[in-house]
Amino acid sequence: MLKRIIIISILVFESMSMLFAEDGSKLWLRAKTDANSQVTANKQSPTIDVAIKELQTQWKGAPVQLNISQTKTTAALGEDGFIISGDNSKRITVESSAEQGLLYGAYHLLRLQECNAVPATLNIQESPSYSIRILNHWDGFGYSGGMMGMGSFWKPDELPDKIPEFYTQYARANASIGINATVLNIVPGPAELLTAQWLEKVKAIADFLRPYHIKVYLAPNFATPKLLGELTTADPLDKEVQKWWNDKVTEIYKYIPDFGGFLMKANSEGTSGPRDYGRTHLDGANMMADALATHKGVLMWRAFVYDPNETDRAKQAYLEFQPNDGKFRPNVIIQVKNGPVDFQPREPISPLFGAVQKTPVMIEYEIMQEYLGATNHIAYLGTTFEECLDTDTYARGEGSTVAKTTDGTLFGHKLTAISGVANHVANADNWCGHVFAQANWYVFGRLAWNNQLSAQDIATEWVKQTFTTDEAFVLPVVDLMMRSREAEVDFMMPLGLHHLFACGHHYGPEPWCDEHEPGWRPDWKPSYYHRADAAGIGYDRTVTGSNAVEQYFPPLRESYGNINTCDERFLLWFHHASWTHKMKSGRTLWDELCYRYDRGVQEVRDFQKTWDRMEKYVDSERFAHVQAKLQIQAHDAVWWRDACILYFQTFSNMPIPYNLERPTTDLETLMKISINPFN
Amino acid sequence: MLKRIIIISILVFESMSMLFAEDGSKLWLRAKTDANSQVTANKQSPTIDVAIKELQTQWKGAPVQLNISQTKTTAALGEDGFIISGDNSKRITVESSAEQGLLYGAYHLLRLQECNAVPATLNIQESPSYSIRILNHWDGFGYSGGMMGMGSFWKPDELPDKIPEFYTQYARANASIGINATVLNIVPGPAELLTAQWLEKVKAIADFLRPYHIKVYLAPNFATPKLLGELTTADPLDKEVQKWWNDKVTEIYKYIPDFGGFLMKANSEGTSGPRDYGRTHLDGANMMADALATHKGVLMWRAFVYDPNETDRAKQAYLEFQPNDGKFRPNVIIQVKNGPVDFQPREPISPLFGAVQKTPVMIEYEIMQEYLGATNHIAYLGTTFEECLDTDTYARGEGSTVAKTTDGTLFGHKLTAISGVANHVANADNWCGHVFAQANWYVFGRLAWNNQLSAQDIATEWVKQTFTTDEAFVLPVVDLMMRSREAEVDFMMPLGLHHLFACGHHYGPEPWCDEHEPGWRPDWKPSYYHRADAAGIGYDRTVTGSNAVEQYFPPLRESYGNINTCDERFLLWFHHASWTHKMKSGRTLWDELCYRYDRGVQEVRDFQKTWDRMEKYVDSERFAHVQAKLQIQAHDAVWWRDACILYFQTFSNMPIPYNLERPTTDLETLMKISINPFN
Repeated sequence: MLKRIIIISILVFESMSMLFAEDGSKLWLRAKTDANSQVTANKQSPTIDVAIKELQTQWKGAPVQLNISQTKTTAALGEDGFIISGDNSKRITVESSAEQGLLYGAYHLLRLQECNAVPATLNIQESPSYSIRILNHWDGFGYSGGMMGMGSFWKPDELPDKIPEFYTQYARANASIGINATVLNIVPGPAELLTAQWLEKVKAIADFLRPYHIKVYLAPNFATPKLLGELTTADPLDKEVQKWWNDKVTEIYKYIPDFGGFLMKANSEGTSGPRDYGRTHLDGANMMADALATHKGVLMWRAFVYDPNETDRAKQAYLEFQPNDGKFRPNVIIQVKNGPVDFQPREPISPLFGAVQKTPVMIEYEIMQEYLGATNHIAYLGTTFEECLDTDTYARGEGSTVAKTTDGTLFGHKLTAISGVANHVANADNWCGHVFAQANWYVFGRLAWNNQLSAQDIATEWVKQTFTTDEAFVLPVVDLMMRSREAEVDFMMPLGLHHLFACGHHYGPEPWCDEHEPGWRPDWKPSYYHRADAAGIGYDRTVTGSNAVEQYFPPLRESYGNINTCDERFLLWFHHASWTHKMKSGRTLWDELCYRYDRGVQEVRDFQKTWDRMEKYVDSERFAHVQAKLQIQAHDAVWWRDACILYFQTFSNMPIPYNLERPTTDLETLMKISINPFN
Repeated sequence: MLKRIIIISILVFESMSMLFAEDGSKLWLRAKTDANSQVTANKQSPTIDVAIKELQTQWKGAPVQLNISQTKTTAALGEDGFIISGDNSKRITVESSAEQGLLYGAYHLLRLQECNAVPATLNIQESPSYSIRILNHWDGFGYSGGMMGMGSFWKPDELPDKIPEFYTQYARANASIGINATVLNIVPGPAELLTAQWLEKVKAIADFLRPYHIKVYLAPNFATPKLLGELTTADPLDKEVQKWWNDKVTEIYKYIPDFGGFLMKANSEGTSGPRDYGRTHLDGANMMADALATHKGVLMWRAFVYDPNETDRAKQAYLEFQPNDGKFRPNVIIQVKNGPVDFQPREPISPLFGAVQKTPVMIEYEIMQEYLGATNHIAYLGTTFEECLDTDTYARGEGSTVAKTTDGTLFGHKLTAISGVANHVANADNWCGHVFAQANWYVFGRLAWNNQLSAQDIATEWVKQTFTTDEAFVLPVVDLMMRSREAEVDFMMPLGLHHLFACGHHYGPEPWCDEHEPGWRPDWKPSYYHRADAAGIGYDRTVTGSNAVEQYFPPLRESYGNINTCDERFLLWFHHASWTHKMKSGRTLWDELCYRYDRGVQEVRDFQKTWDRMEKYVDSERFAHVQAKLQIQAHDAVWWRDACILYFQTFSNMPIPYNLERPTTDLETLMKISINPFN
C-alpha cells in the first residue's frame, strides 16, 4: 500500500488547472455547443434536465423526445437501459423506464454524432453488462492536509460550501460513458473519513453528482472505531463493534440517502483487518455487509491480500476466498484484480474468476498506468481489459469467459459490478497527465457498459471524438494504440516475466533489486518473481513448483502446466525455463527474450514516426504534448531493454543476437540510476 | 587557445599507470619478447643497439645482419632510408647509410612479422616522404605545477634525475612508425620554459630519446624575453630582442647539441606575437629563424591565425601568409592545419597548400580527437589524413596533390615536415583513453613515413598488430574503422557544416550557442558558421559572400563556387543553400540533412553490433573497454542528431522525413544540457 501511495505522489506533478483549451481538458467531450436543438421530455427531473441540456446545445439532428415509459421492453432493459428509435430527418425518441436511461440514451446519440455514425433510421436498444460501473479513486480525500504529499483532486478544502467548477466536466465525462459510481478515496482511508466533518463533504459531492446518476462510495479503514478512540477493538465479532458500524452506516445514510456502500482493503500489505483479531475475511466482510444491508448498501471486499510468509503470492487470494464461496452475505461482492499478482503489464487471469460462483465477483482493473509508464507512456489498456474479459475460465465448460463469470450470465447474480482504479483524473489540465491515458478511462467505461465491445472499436470511437474523424488520422493512431500495450510488455516484461520494477517505485526496471531496505519483504523483490539463475529464468508454478496452476480449471490447468503447451505469453509466469528452451519461433528462450525486448523499443520508435506524421491533423498543443511524451517513452523503452537484457545476461552468459541493436549503456551505469520517490 | 586547454583538461581523466597488461598499454608493440635471434651489425652505436635488441628479443626469422654502407642506393634513400634483402630461410641484411635507417629497417621487419607478411625472399627499399615527422604535444610541460589543471605526461618533477619508466615504450612506439621529432609542450609555452631549470629537464628527455632518433623541439612564447623581465619589449626588429634570442638559442644548444628547433604560435587566439609591436608574422619568423639557423635549427611557424575583426575566419591564414611567399628564411616551415578553420570533422583543404610554393609548407594534423568525441568515440582519422593528402590543389595543374605540395615533389624543398597534434599520449593506461585512438597515432606515423600508403592498409596493419591477425576479426573491424569518421561527420556536421560545438567545450552540440559569455568572439560561435535562417543554411563563401573560394586554384575555385558543381561534402561550407535545394540524391537539402544525421546514428549502432560479435577474438579487458565506449558513442550520436535536427528545424519548419527514427528528446531539454568544463 505504502509503495503504491508513493508512486502516485511522484507521478502526478502537473499543476491543476481547468482551462478548457486545446490542452486535453475537454476529454472526449468536444462537440460544439452551438446547437439549438428541439428536445422535449414527458417527465421532469434533474437528471432529465441534464439530458435535455446536453442535447439542446450539441445535438444537430432531428428533434428528440425523451420518454419515461414502462413497457415490457423498457422493463427488460432495466433502469439504465434505453431504446432509441425514429428517423433522423424527422423525429427521434429515446425511451427508458427510468431517468438515467434517458441520460445514457442522450450521450449515446451524441457519441454517434461525433463519430459521424448517426444512421438515417434509428433502432437501438442498449443495456449495461454490469449494474455497478465504478471508479476507485486512489486519492487523498479524507486525509486532512493530504496524505504523504498526495492531495485530493476533490479539493476538499472548498467543500461543502463551494463546489469546484471542474466537477461538472468530471460528472459529464463519467455519465457519457455510463460510469455510475465512484469511490472517493484511496483504500483504506483514514479514521476521520467517517467523521461528521468529512461526511458533510461527501454529502456535497454526492448531491452534486446525483443528477448525473453517479453514486458515491467510501473506502473506510477497518479499524475506524478503534482508531477514532471510540472503541478499544475493531474485532468484527465484537457486539460493540457491530453496533458501532450499524450506527455509523445509519449516520452516513442520513447525509446521503442513496449512498453506495464501502470498498474495503483489509489485511493487505500491512493494513488493518479482521485477521488482527484472529478472524477471517469472511467474518469481517459479513459484519460490515450486515451494517450496510439495512440501507441497501453494497460491500466490495478486495481479494488483493497476501502474506509474506506464504509460498507463492499468486496463489493466496484464491486460497483465502474460494473456500468461503457461498458464505458471504448477498450484498457482498469480491473485488478481484484481473491477474493474480498486481496489475503487471501482462498477467494470466486470476484463478478466482469462475472459481467463486455463489458470491458475486467483480473485476478490478487499473485504469491509471501504475506499472505501464505512468503518465509518460502511451499504453492503451483496452486490449488488456479485453484480453481478460475474453479469457475462458472453463468454470462451466467452454465459453465460460471472465466476462460471463462476472456479468451475471453464468451464475445468475443480479448484483454485478466492475471497477477501475483511477488516480490522476483531474490532477492535470488533461485530467490524466497524458492525453492518450484518457482513452483508458474511456475504454473502461465503455467495456463496463458493454463487455462485448471490441477494444479496437472503442479506441476508434475515442480517437474520433477526441481528435478528428479523418480516416488518415484515425486508422494509424488506432493501430498505434492497439499495439501500444504489447510494446510495453515487450520492452518491460515479455514472455510472462513480471514484477521487475524497482523496489522503491513502479516506473523503471530493477530486476537486480534484492536489497532495497532492511526488512523489505521478499515478495516485493523482483528476484522473487523472475528467479533467474544459470539454468534459466521464470517462476515454476507447475506441480514441481508452487503448483499455482492447480487453481485453474481444466484444460487451462494442463495447458499452463506443461511447458510445451503453455501459452508463451505466460511461459515464465508458470515455468522456470532453460535459457536454451526452444520457442515456437525456433529461437532459444534467451534469443527470444532479447528479440522481444528489442521489438518493444522498435515499436515505440515506430509510434514516434506515426505520431509525427499526424501533425497536420492535431492542434499544436496536443501534438507537442504527445510528441514529447513519446520521446520519454522511447528513452524508457531503451532503459528497460538494456537493464533487463544486461542483467539477465549475467545468468544466461549468452550473446545478444547480433542482428539486434546493442545496449546503449552498461549494466553498472544502469544499476546506479536512482529515482528517489521521496524527493 | 584557452578554449583548447580547457577541453584537454576535462577529457583526460584516466589515471596514469603503466602496467603492461591487456589494458592497451602495449599499443601495437605486442610481439612476444621470447625470441633469441642472431643479429649482428657492422658498426656500433646506441641506436644500432636498440635495433639489435628489438630484433634479438622479437624476431623469429633468419639471422639478421645490420650494415651501415655508403652505396649509391643507400645514399639515394637518405639517412632514414633502408634496404632489406635476403632469404628468410637463410639470412637477411638491412642496409642504410646511417644508424637510424637500420633502426627503421628493424621495426619494418618486426611489423611484417606481426602482420604475418614476411616474404620468403626480401627485396625492400624504403625512404620517408618527409624529413621531419613530428608530434606536437599539447602538454603542460614548462608550466610549474601544471597549466589550468592540465599536468604534464613527461612527469617533469622527476626530471632530470630520474627518467620515468614509460619513456621507453613512448620512444619505441614512435620509432617503430618512423616518428623522429617531438615538441614537448603546448603552443605557446610559458616564459620559464626557456630557463635553465626547465632546459635541464629538456636535456634529460632529449638524451633519453636520442638513441631512438627522436629530436626534441620546444614551443616557446614569443614574448619570452619580456615576460621573463629581461627586456622591456619582444619586438622582433629590436636589436636587443634579436640578441636575446641568439643568446638563448646558443644556450639551448649547449644543453642539447641536436636540438630540433621551435614551433611558434604567435598572435593567434590572443597569444603574443610580432603584431603586438606593429610587425608582421614574416618579421617575427625571420628573426627567430636567424637565431636558430646558426645551429641548423628549424622554425615551424603556425599559420593558424585569425582576427575577430576580419570577415571570414577561413580566409585569414591565406591572406596573412601567401603574400609573403618567398620572403621567409630557408629554415622556416609554415605549419598549416589540414583545413582552413580548425580540425573540424570534415573541412576542405586549406588554400595555403600549393599557394605557398617558395617556402616549405607542412601539414598540421590533429591526432587526438578534439572535435571527434575525444577519448569516447571510435573515429579512425586515417581517412581524414588520406583525404587531405590526396586532394588535388591544382597548383601546377592536375596531380598537384597536397601530398606533392608538401613532400618536396612539386616545389623541390629539401626541408619537409609533417606534424600531428597529440595530447593524451601516456595519460592513460592505454595511452590515448581509447584503444582505437591509438590507431590515429599509428596512422599519422605511417603516413608521415609514406604518404602514398592507403588508410585502409594502415588500419589493417594496426589491427593485426594490436589485436589479432585472424581475418574473422580483421576484416569487420577494419571496415568499422574505415566507416567511423564518416559516421562522426554524419551525426555531427554533415554536408559541410562545421563548428557546431558548444562554446564552452568541444564535445557536444550547441548550434544555438550564441551567448556563451560577454565578450565571446563571434567567430567562436556556431551561428557564425552555420548561418541558418528561414531561407536556408550554410556559409556563403562564393563571390556573393566572403569569396573564400577565390583562394583556391582553378578548377577548384569554380567547382566549389558553383552550388550545382560543389562537392556535396562541402556544400554548406561554401554555400548558403535553400532548405529545398535539390540534392544529388533527389532529396531536398532538409531531408538530406536529416537523413545524414540519422545515418550517423545507425552507423554507430552497427559498430556496436560488429564489436559485440568480436568478443571471442579479444581479451575481456579491451573488449569491455571498447564496448563501453561504443555505448557512449551511440548515446552521443543520438544527442548530436537530435540537437542539430531539432534546432535547425526551427528554421526550416519542415518535417523530419517520416521513415527516419524520431528525436528522443525535445529541443528545450537538449538546450539545458550543460557540461561545465571548469568542474
